[in-house]
Amino acid sequence: MLLAIPKNEFQQRQERFIESLNENKCESAVLFAVTDIFYLTGFHFHPTERPIGLFVDPQHKFHLFLPELEREHAEEYSVIDFVHSYKEYPGTTHPMESLKELLLEYQFENKTVGYDSIGYGSSMGYRGSSIDQLINVKAFVSLKGMIEEMRFVKSDNEIELIKESCRWGNLAHRLLQKYTKAGLSEIEITSKASMEATMAMIETLGQDYKPHGSTAFAIFRGQIGPESAFPHAVTQNIILSKGDTLVTGAAASVFGYTSELERVMFVDEYTKEQERYFNHMYEAQEVAFSAIKPGIPYSAVEEEVQKYFKENGLTELTRHHTGHNIGLLGHEAPFFDLGDHTEIKPGMVVTVEPGIYVQGLGGFRHSDTVLVTENGIEMLTYYPRDLASLIC
Amino acid sequence: MLLAIPKNEFQQRQERFIESLNENKCESAVLFAVTDIFYLTGFHFHPTERPIGLFVDPQHKFHLFLPELEREHAEEYSVIDFVHSYKEYPGTTHPMESLKELLLEYQFENKTVGYDSIGYGSSMGYRGSSIDQLINVKAFVSLKGMIEEMRFVKSDNEIELIKESCRWGNLAHRLLQKYTKAGLSEIEITSKASMEATMAMIETLGQDYKPHGSTAFAIFRGQIGPESAFPHAVTQNIILSKGDTLVTGAAASVFGYTSELERVMFVDEYTKEQERYFNHMYEAQEVAFSAIKPGIPYSAVEEEVQKYFKENGLTELTRHHTGHNIGLLGHEAPFFDLGDHTEIKPGMVVTVEPGIYVQGLGGFRHSDTVLVTENGIEMLTYYPRDLASLIC
Repeated sequence: MLLAIPKNEFQQRQERFIESLNENKCESAVLFAVTDIFYLTGFHFHPTERPIGLFVDPQHKFHLFLPELEREHAEEYSVIDFVHSYKEYPGTTHPMESLKELLLEYQFENKTVGYDSIGYGSSMGYRGSSIDQLINVKAFVSLKGMIEEMRFVKSDNEIELIKESCRWGNLAHRLLQKYTKAGLSEIEITSKASMEATMAMIETLGQDYKPHGSTAFAIFRGQIGPESAFPHAVTQNIILSKGDTLVTGAAASVFGYTSELERVMFVDEYTKEQERYFNHMYEAQEVAFSAIKPGIPYSAVEEEVQKYFKENGLTELTRHHTGHNIGLLGHEAPFFDLGDHTEIKPGMVVTVEPGIYVQGLGGFRHSDTVLVTENGIEMLTYYPRDLASLIC
Repeated sequence: MLLAIPKNEFQQRQERFIESLNENKCESAVLFAVTDIFYLTGFHFHPTERPIGLFVDPQHKFHLFLPELEREHAEEYSVIDFVHSYKEYPGTTHPMESLKELLLEYQFENKTVGYDSIGYGSSMGYRGSSIDQLINVKAFVSLKGMIEEMRFVKSDNEIELIKESCRWGNLAHRLLQKYTKAGLSEIEITSKASMEATMAMIETLGQDYKPHGSTAFAIFRGQIGPESAFPHAVTQNIILSKGDTLVTGAAASVFGYTSELERVMFVDEYTKEQERYFNHMYEAQEVAFSAIKPGIPYSAVEEEVQKYFKENGLTELTRHHTGHNIGLLGHEAPFFDLGDHTEIKPGMVVTVEPGIYVQGLGGFRHSDTVLVTENGIEMLTYYPRDLASLIC
C-alpha cells in the first residue's frame, strides 16, 4: 500500500526541473508557489505572512528559504540540499534582505534567473520587495506554468495515491447518501459522513497515512434544492426537503493528492422534469467518456459535449466546461474547454463533469475522475451513476 | 444574535473605499484579492482557474466581473451595483479580453487607476494578461494594503461575530480536551471533537448561521509530543502517548470571521522540565497582556516579551513573534514584531501567543484572542490557561 511519494521520485523531479531550466537557458531559479515547492521537495506548509521560497543555485543545488519557525520542520521532512532561515517577518531585518544576501552568496548576480512570480505573495499581511529589486542579473525569465506542465502526466506512484483518494471519497459518499434525509441540515449530514469515513480511513491506513490536505469528506457545498443551480455555491447550512435536487462532492487527500467524485441525488422523489435533466446530464458525461483518448486536443472533447447539448436544446442551461486535470490541486490545467488545445496524453488524470443548471429547480452534474490510458480511459471513481441508485 | 454583517455595513465599507480612492488620487480601481472582495461586497467564493475581480468605475459604481457559473450566485448574495459575466476560462475569448471591453466601456482609459495586484493570480491553471497590458491609462497606482488597513479596526458587528467564533471554539476545545487520551490517534480525537461542536453550533444557531469558512473545529495540527516543537507542523496522524506535550488550536468561522484559541496540554502527566517551560510561557503571555494598550506601537509589546525571555535565558528557544491581528483571515497585519511600528488602536482584535520550543521535548504556546479597548484589553477567548486545568 503506497501512502507517500518516495524520496527518489522527488530527486527525479528535481533532475527534470534542472533539465527544464537548461532548456529555458536559465542558470538558476527562484520559486514561491506553494504547490510547486511541495512537488519538488516534499515540504508541506501553510503559507502565512512569513515568506517561504525555493531557490536553485548555478551549481544546481536546491535551497529552501523560510522563517526560523519552519526550519526544523523543513530539515526533517523535505528532500533538499540546504535549508536557510531568517528570524521573523517583518523583523528588524526584512526577510527579503536576508534572501538578497543568500542570492549574492550563491552567485545569482549577472546570471539568467528563472522565476515563477517576481516576489512572495500573500494576503496575510505580507509586504516586501520583488526579487528584481534585490539583485542585478543578466536576465529574469518567467517560468510560470513550467512545473504545472511537469505535473500534467502523472507517475505510477501519483496514480496510486489518487486511486487511494478515490477509495475513501467513495466511502464518504456512500455514508453521505445513507445519512441524507429530508428535515436534516446540510452540515449535520456532511459532518457525520465525513467523520465516519475519516475514522475508517485512519483505522485502515494507520500512522503512515499523512493527509497533507483534507481527510475523507463528503459535502453538498450548499448545492441543495434550488441552490444546487449555483454551480459553485458555498455551504449555507440549508435544511433538506423532499424532492430536492442535490449535487454532492467527496474525496480525501492522500499525501496531498486528491480526486473528485460528484453526484446528482434526489431526496425521496423526483419529477419528470428532474428525471429529464438527469438523463441528459448522464448522456453528456457518456459522450465525454467516449471522446477522451490520447492524441487529440482537450478542446475536441468539449466540442463533442457542446454538440450534444446543442442538439438537445440545452446550451442555454450550461455554465462551465466539461472538466480539468486533477492531482495536487482540485483544479489543474489543462481544461476540457473550447480554448484549450493541449494534446491529451496517457497518464493524465482528469475530471469529467458536464453540467446543466435550471434556475429555481436545481443543478445536474456528476463528476468522475478518470485516467487517460493508451486507448481511452480507466475510471478511477466507481460510485454508481444511474438514477435508481441515487435516490436518498 | 448577530450572524452576518448587515447590508448597510457593506455600503459604508464601499463609501470608505471611495474616500480612500480619492485620497490616493485614483478615479477608478480594479481589485482581485478574494478577502477584500468579500469585505466590500459580501460575495464569498472559492477562487479557481476562472478569474474573478471587482472594479469601481469613475462614477463610483461597484462591478463584479466573474464567470457565468458564478453570475446568479453573485446576483443573489452580494451588495453590488452591476454583475458582469464571461462565458468560460480559457474559452474562445479569453476572460481578460472581456474585462478589457468592460474597462473601455466604463471609461477607464486615460484615468488614474488603482489596483491591488496587476493581474489575476491563481495556481489552479490560470494564465492571462495583466491589466496594464489591456488598457492605456494615465497612471496605475498600487493600492496594496489599503483595504487591509481599512480592516485593522473592527466594527461592533465584526467584534460580535468574532465573539460568536470564540464561543464555539471554546466548546470544540472543551470536547478536544475531554476526548484526548493516550493511545488514540490525532485525527480520531480532533474529528470527534470538531463534529460534536459543529453539531451543537448548528443546532443552536439554526439556518441563519453561514460559516463562510470552517464550522467549529479543534485540532493539534501534528503538534504532539516532540513534534509539538515544530511551531507550524501539519497534521501527521500521530498516536498520543502518556507525557506528551500538546499544542492545540480551536475556532469556528462565523460569516467569515474567525478567532484563535490555543493551549498547551499534557497527556496524563508532566515532568518538572515541562512544568518549567509551561510556567515561562504563561508568564510571557501575562507580560504581553499587560503591555497591550492603545497609543503605543505593536513593536513595544514584542520588546517587553523578548525582554522577559532574555532575562530568563529563553531567547534561543523562541521561534516567532508574539501575535497578529485576526478577523477575516487567520493572520492579518499588523504584528507584535520588533519591525512593526503601527500604532495600537481601540477596536483592533489581536492574538497573544508567545512560544517556547524545545527540540525533542515539545512546544509551549497558548494563544488568546483579545480586543484592544480604550484602556487595555478585553479577553475574547476564555478557556482556562492554568496548568492544573490542562491535563488530559
